[in-house]
Amino acid sequence: MHEHPADIAVALQAMPPEESWRILRQAGQRRVAAIFSYLDHACQMQLAMIVPRADLAAIVTDMQSDDRADLYHELSPEQREALMPALAQAEREDIRRLTAYREGTAGAIMTSDYAALPSDISATQALRLLRREAPAKETIYRAYVIDDERRLIGAVRLEDIITAPHRATIADIMDTNLHAVRVHDDEEAAARKIARYDIIALPVIDDQDQLVGIITHDDALDVMEAEATEDFHRVATITDLDSSVSRATVPILYRARISWLMILVFGNIFSGAGIAHFEDTIAAHLALMFFLPILIASGGNAGSQSSTLMVRALATGDIALSDWGKVFARELAVAVLLGLSMAAAIAVIGIFRGGREIALVIALSMILIVIVGSLIGMLLPFILSRFRMDPATASTPLVTSIADATGVLIYFSIARLVLAMP
Amino acid sequence: MHEHPADIAVALQAMPPEESWRILRQAGQRRVAAIFSYLDHACQMQLAMIVPRADLAAIVTDMQSDDRADLYHELSPEQREALMPALAQAEREDIRRLTAYREGTAGAIMTSDYAALPSDISATQALRLLRREAPAKETIYRAYVIDDERRLIGAVRLEDIITAPHRATIADIMDTNLHAVRVHDDEEAAARKIARYDIIALPVIDDQDQLVGIITHDDALDVMEAEATEDFHRVATITDLDSSVSRATVPILYRARISWLMILVFGNIFSGAGIAHFEDTIAAHLALMFFLPILIASGGNAGSQSSTLMVRALATGDIALSDWGKVFARELAVAVLLGLSMAAAIAVIGIFRGGREIALVIALSMILIVIVGSLIGMLLPFILSRFRMDPATASTPLVTSIADATGVLIYFSIARLVLAMP
Repeated sequence: MHEHPADIAVALQAMPPEESWRILRQAGQRRVAAIFSYLDHACQMQLAMIVPRADLAAIVTDMQSDDRADLYHELSPEQREALMPALAQAEREDIRRLTAYREGTAGAIMTSDYAALPSDISATQALRLLRREAPAKETIYRAYVIDDERRLIGAVRLEDIITAPHRATIADIMDTNLHAVRVHDDEEAAARKIARYDIIALPVIDDQDQLVGIITHDDALDVMEAEATEDFHRVATITDLDSSVSRATVPILYRARISWLMILVFGNIFSGAGIAHFEDTIAAHLALMFFLPILIASGGNAGSQSSTLMVRALATGDIALSDWGKVFARELAVAVLLGLSMAAAIAVIGIFRGGREIALVIALSMILIVIVGSLIGMLLPFILSRFRMDPATASTPLVTSIADATGVLIYFSIARLVLAMP
Repeated sequence: MHEHPADIAVALQAMPPEESWRILRQAGQRRVAAIFSYLDHACQMQLAMIVPRADLAAIVTDMQSDDRADLYHELSPEQREALMPALAQAEREDIRRLTAYREGTAGAIMTSDYAALPSDISATQALRLLRREAPAKETIYRAYVIDDERRLIGAVRLEDIITAPHRATIADIMDTNLHAVRVHDDEEAAARKIARYDIIALPVIDDQDQLVGIITHDDALDVMEAEATEDFHRVATITDLDSSVSRATVPILYRARISWLMILVFGNIFSGAGIAHFEDTIAAHLALMFFLPILIASGGNAGSQSSTLMVRALATGDIALSDWGKVFARELAVAVLLGLSMAAAIAVIGIFRGGREIALVIALSMILIVIVGSLIGMLLPFILSRFRMDPATASTPLVTSIADATGVLIYFSIARLVLAMP
């Protein structure tokens, strides 16, 4: 077995749990824990049910502290009770501490396997210490300098330790310009800091400024990937899909999809009511119906472009809430240009299909509908953000529904006005 | 100036270039290069135009090789000609080599500042070598072992070097189970490997298996972030937005948005034509119009949920092209359940609004429309992927347009059948 644990985990996941345990148990103890960590949660659960308690305790002991805490989160109360007494006290306490933080916080994804150093030892002594501690730590490439009360006072790179002058102390070479997060900070904020400063690990401190853990670069990648997926789903009205798409069952998918679809069924009654309100106008001029789908779809399409641009830019920090005024002015300019271009296109179709009066109605409607749709799409994420809701709730279907209803009103109002109909 | 270069860069970007250069030049030479690397491309360009040639050459020399190559990409032919003679030959060749790779490939984002070791030296000798080379390398935490022809034969972690037994050679402690990419591989494939194996850097080899560069964990974060943003935009029909959203100008945004909006204007003619085709049915029963927006929007909404789930799952590797059969069967089951639930909801509205016959028509239509919309949304990304197009081209508006046209046909066909109208 010279494969990477991640590759072995993929192969094991495809097997029944009994068979995968038969293979897994043949690996060395530390390697078993490494492979186990790469299995997905569903598979870990299945194994946890059949693996003998002593073996499971050995695996859990050897797992990295953050992976271990994740596993504990998933276990049933009975499984937890069975497992905990089989662990040493240090592991039990570590699990209790890490699982105390709410999901989605820095505390919930940090690991307590970090390397800490006092500031008054020499670089040579530090190297000796790190060398000894390396196997038990998630990384020694960045070690954290703490004072007597475990308060974080600096960070030092292994590279700087090994290239330090002979007599240098850790205090001489440590970096005191610290980038740290607090345990209750959002995990995404932590990941963004790692991305922004290109660092290998970020220290996590508690309310007393004491060092309690680190978040490593690979966690940052996972967090940013998961957050992007969540936003993708939310923009398409898929909520709280806790499983991977490949492993999601029919009931899981149904539950993740039905709520917003139902809300939108009722939301779209407004468009229907709008049409019903103009029934006389429509009856007098059935040709108007030909252009209805094009016009209202255009408002929705322009609006969903705007909302998606904003949702993503707000999520990545490219745009801040306070930028809304500047963005609004620019959006208005873009929307006017888009509306004019699309009005020209539809007017040509209109002349052939309904004559000059119809062409005028649909061209005017197009300009207004695209402008209004774009502005709704742009503003909605800002408004949601302002009220501390996730901007991604400004889903494409929601923006489209609002734009649709507005589009119906704009179109038939203009038609009634220009065509001077009842 | 004890701030992180990334923070200083943000502050400088808000100033006019002359002023930002006045501040920047006061930093030490290596620090100037670090800060300069964190500036966005637009700002780097502005500075490149006003910074004296000798200073610019010094900055470029001190930049990391991948950042330097990116900058060169952006320069105008005149700027390149002015800059290149001011550089030492080693830098000139390095730039030429790195900029030869097509954008989006591993070669285009790799850096040539990697640490390489022969296999026959001792760990102690290796440590001495790395210590000396550290300042010029992007990372020494992973060094790459090459043979006499520079072919990659292993990788070794600094951690293993410093904890190695006294007499161990690099060959004894190196990892020969290599994860590498080729220069022409997709940058996203490289980023996914880094994420999958939780590694700090990934070696890049050429067609002769020679080591030519490395891609580091922070590049992987940037690539995955950029790819997610591109997919977000594409799903909302925004194409090739080369600028950040915050810095995009009105013409840039207009160009990125207009093409698909225009295509969809013409695409939605099909829905209009469908409605026109059923003009008699509509005229005989205007109440049908009330439900039209709800029904066709429901098909589009269900379809865009399905397509988004597939686009993202295909992008992250959660689902493979070959899974389409399994996914199709599951999608059908979910869509039937969704359709039934939504049909029940709309039937209630239908009874109050149009009587039992209308309720039957719209309930039947809802079931069929949701199923067809979902299946279109699910299949389109697979079909595009099969023909080697980006699955994200299955944008929400495209899926919605197709679902709209299908919805019109389904609805009025059923109405004509059930209501036995002309």
